[in-house]
Amino acid sequence: MGSSYANANGGVERGSSAIGAVDKGVDYANYFCTYSFLYHQKEMLSDRVRMDAYYNSIFQNKHHFLGKTVLDVGTGSGILAIWSAQAGARKVYAVEATKMTEHARQLVKANGLEDVVEVIEGSMEDITLPEKVDVIISEWMGYFLLRESMFDSVICARDRWLKPTGVMYPSHARIWVAPIRSHLVDQKGHHFEGAMEEWHAFVHDTKNSYGVDMSSLTDPFTEEQRKYYLQTSLWNNLQPEQVIGTAAIIKEIDCLTTSVDDILSIKANFLSSILDDDMKFSGFGGWFDVHFRGRSESPAESEIELTTAPSYENPTHWGQQVFLLNHPIRSSKGDNINVSFVMNRSKENHRLLEVEFECEYKQASGRLLQPFRKKFFIE
Amino acid sequence: MGSSYANANGGVERGSSAIGAVDKGVDYANYFCTYSFLYHQKEMLSDRVRMDAYYNSIFQNKHHFLGKTVLDVGTGSGILAIWSAQAGARKVYAVEATKMTEHARQLVKANGLEDVVEVIEGSMEDITLPEKVDVIISEWMGYFLLRESMFDSVICARDRWLKPTGVMYPSHARIWVAPIRSHLVDQKGHHFEGAMEEWHAFVHDTKNSYGVDMSSLTDPFTEEQRKYYLQTSLWNNLQPEQVIGTAAIIKEIDCLTTSVDDILSIKANFLSSILDDDMKFSGFGGWFDVHFRGRSESPAESEIELTTAPSYENPTHWGQQVFLLNHPIRSSKGDNINVSFVMNRSKENHRLLEVEFECEYKQASGRLLQPFRKKFFIE
Repeated sequence: MGSSYANANGGVERGSSAIGAVDKGVDYANYFCTYSFLYHQKEMLSDRVRMDAYYNSIFQNKHHFLGKTVLDVGTGSGILAIWSAQAGARKVYAVEATKMTEHARQLVKANGLEDVVEVIEGSMEDITLPEKVDVIISEWMGYFLLRESMFDSVICARDRWLKPTGVMYPSHARIWVAPIRSHLVDQKGHHFEGAMEEWHAFVHDTKNSYGVDMSSLTDPFTEEQRKYYLQTSLWNNLQPEQVIGTAAIIKEIDCLTTSVDDILSIKANFLSSILDDDMKFSGFGGWFDVHFRGRSESPAESEIELTTAPSYENPTHWGQQVFLLNHPIRSSKGDNINVSFVMNRSKENHRLLEVEFECEYKQASGRLLQPFRKKFFIE
Repeated sequence: MGSSYANANGGVERGSSAIGAVDKGVDYANYFCTYSFLYHQKEMLSDRVRMDAYYNSIFQNKHHFLGKTVLDVGTGSGILAIWSAQAGARKVYAVEATKMTEHARQLVKANGLEDVVEVIEGSMEDITLPEKVDVIISEWMGYFLLRESMFDSVICARDRWLKPTGVMYPSHARIWVAPIRSHLVDQKGHHFEGAMEEWHAFVHDTKNSYGVDMSSLTDPFTEEQRKYYLQTSLWNNLQPEQVIGTAAIIKEIDCLTTSVDDILSIKANFLSSILDDDMKFSGFGGWFDVHFRGRSESPAESEIELTTAPSYENPTHWGQQVFLLNHPIRSSKGDNINVSFVMNRSKENHRLLEVEFECEYKQASGRLLQPFRKKFFIE
């Protein structure tokens, strides 16, 4: 392969912490472009839990906005910028990397706020503002919080443009993990086996009909299918009863102080206890919550929480991320799982993640099962 | 938007005829990368019609291969290169832009052909061969023949590396269009209406619950959904009885002489007669065929055809492309449609196409319906 295709995504470094960061054109083709569609914006704007949390955090904390300057990182349709202006901001800078800015500008004008909200097209890393701001507001959270690595852009905005007294909206974030049960574990197993059966029939037919022996590709094909069916985390809307053990926080983020280095590699150890008898421990579910608390020098009057935990009444478009074991483990109340969790960015694409769970399963009786570990790709 | 995102795909020109050609890293992210998966290769290798045509064209025309030099453009898994070597080629250069080359090399070795087949990783436009070749073989056809614009790379290979006496495999190609009936026309209409109803409810809710008037985005949203539901061609496996009028050839390609300029913009006029009574003319179906005829100085002994026309027994993975009208027209035997057809490449991405049909519908009675035109995007 010529040097132009050094890796799947160009592999151009964008900064000292930008390991696996991609060339900008490639980043657009891979990532940003989905946000340039109104349909996608509408999906996010239709998420009532998300909308309520941000709406309430702003309008129940007007003291943070009244007469203040605000920066909205990744404004999309402009909704957060518009609310900030409606809450009394003196000036709002709404930054967006895609052509969605054209629609944001239209929306700002149609809502009579063009004197307050300035929509700026560009990436946070490149654009310049005429002043520092009192508030940085952003909806930057991806699946499992950090997929998409958009928080890097919020950190960049904070370090360049937040006043020393400034406030982050949201102010805090946490990632949670818990053992779950899920029928998907059997489904995925069957799909994988089906794909492998089909492959073996294909190898047989290709040799007989076309005189070419493809059996030397069985190993890489198996690896590719294994990754696809068994080692890739899934988006799912978990029901609360599927959470079969105590949940644990594996990362806490203070949006005012966290650096990119703090989130490049995440390690955590936790113990989870199984809550009920006769459960099939199928793997782990992961989700996040964010909080709007202001800062100690300037706290929120009304603290708001946005949670994406499994919920009957209040699901979100984020769902949860599901990490399935190869084979479920029959579990009983009082069993314990000692978990070592590691999460890093993909070397090929910093917006994707790789996760590893290392588990020591101890039954309530005290008997220790064989320890196991499994790696997952968050694609 | 900063200059780094000048358009959706970087917009870097790759050559005088490369209007809308994209930066290489972006081209990889958008296009080539799908071919680096074994699953995708297997899908193509499992297409019996495709496999039989190429297999027969080679092994029933061994005189073109015995002791000759061959270039396989876009070798993928290496299948055509392997068959060429098995048919007696002295040397085969198998060029592939993705890391699939690693698997191709493995396959060549496992089939004992490493002395004959040399796998080269790179794009046809960049790599160098030690000699010119007697045969260029390639499976370059995309949906509706020219989607993906891979034939550009075959032309480049031909102009640089084919001996003056050399032969192209395939030698000829044709694109066909015919009026069809399809229930999809109603389905897509309903989906579009459903999306618009949902939008209006969304605008209403967002104003009431969140105080933001999104009605100014109705026009661009409608345009986006219209394009998605009504103006994008579909992949479909048409049944022969769905073809309700005479089919016409809208483009013929001689692979030995066609230039990129010849295929940049395609224009054709044709008349199609409706074949039966009580039909619902829903739009047009498009497909292609290719032929392996050799050249006049060195013809094939056995002429082979690979057709992707609607078929009960022999469907292919290409299916057909379906271009649906907004509303079906009730048709009778003897009705005639006078069609002006135009196809160009997308300005944003030379691998995608835009098509326009202009129709004059004359009923068997002689009555002329209102002429209409419709544009489609082949994405």
